[in-house]
Amino acid sequence: MRVLGVDPGLTRCGVGIVDGAPGKPLRLVHVAVLRTSPDEDIATRLLGIETGIEALMAEFTPDAVAVERVFAQHNVRTVMGTAQAGAIAIVAAARRGLPVALHTPSEAKAAVTGNGRADKAQVTMMVTRLLRLEAAPKPADAADALALAICHVWRGGAQARLEAARRAVRQTGSRS
Amino acid sequence: MRVLGVDPGLTRCGVGIVDGAPGKPLRLVHVAVLRTSPDEDIATRLLGIETGIEALMAEFTPDAVAVERVFAQHNVRTVMGTAQAGAIAIVAAARRGLPVALHTPSEAKAAVTGNGRADKAQVTMMVTRLLRLEAAPKPADAADALALAICHVWRGGAQARLEAARRAVRQTGSRS
Repeated sequence: MRVLGVDPGLTRCGVGIVDGAPGKPLRLVHVAVLRTSPDEDIATRLLGIETGIEALMAEFTPDAVAVERVFAQHNVRTVMGTAQAGAIAIVAAARRGLPVALHTPSEAKAAVTGNGRADKAQVTMMVTRLLRLEAAPKPADAADALALAICHVWRGGAQARLEAARRAVRQTGSRS
Repeated sequence: MRVLGVDPGLTRCGVGIVDGAPGKPLRLVHVAVLRTSPDEDIATRLLGIETGIEALMAEFTPDAVAVERVFAQHNVRTVMGTAQAGAIAIVAAARRGLPVALHTPSEAKAAVTGNGRADKAQVTMMVTRLLRLEAAPKPADAADALALAICHVWRGGAQARLEAARRAVRQTGSRS
């Protein structure tokens, strides 16, 4: 299973692609940060993120997309941008028929470190170790996107099957 | 100028299309509410909104899109959905090269009633009057989308020219 993890943001949108399956070694496919300038208007910025994510999907053909679930507990302006950038990633995946899962930051941290409150250094260290990299992934702040992708490899399979089952039931229901 | 106004929301996304120009009579082209079910997953909902907005743009070919600017002062869950749905509308417009403007709810209310704190009934009454409709527009809660479109007809032209000028300056700057 190839998973694209997206740590959404307007100014910096982390993207990490990982190959893996539960119980098997993980492999880093690609990691990057999509950037847009705060000097641009919101339409240009969202289009830039969409173009970047579309290009990644076309080049690396992930089987699933994991996006960080946003909470509004932080800075209000940041959260709005995060929600907007996340929506772009979610709909880009949906347009291609790819399953989309949302995982919270704590779920991603817990998946790679065992601790939902782990700090950035610990997450980066474990991502480096789990992907058997010789050095920490660069750019450094895309480690969260890789943690999301790894989280999804390990939890996502079950979630996707549940969701597929739920859709099947719903469709059967609406036909009857 | 034909303007598509979007009052974004996941469960109910108001859309209103108005023809007009500053100092000329306004004309209602189309009004509707795009709905998605809270029982669906977020990817399905955002894709539903995108499909609906794309269809409107294809059918009615607006010259500009006005989207309500979201603030995080209300219910946190609602605001996240509003930000996500708004992002879908913004990027759909940007993909077509249409200018996008954001107006606050107060700006839209002030444009049609003269009072930025006008209540829903007053906004609906003025939208009905300004568009010279025989009855209040239906569905009723798309009146906000029409108010946004009208607001944009009256203020948007100047904004769009400013933005175009700003881009031109920026591009000249980056070439030098």
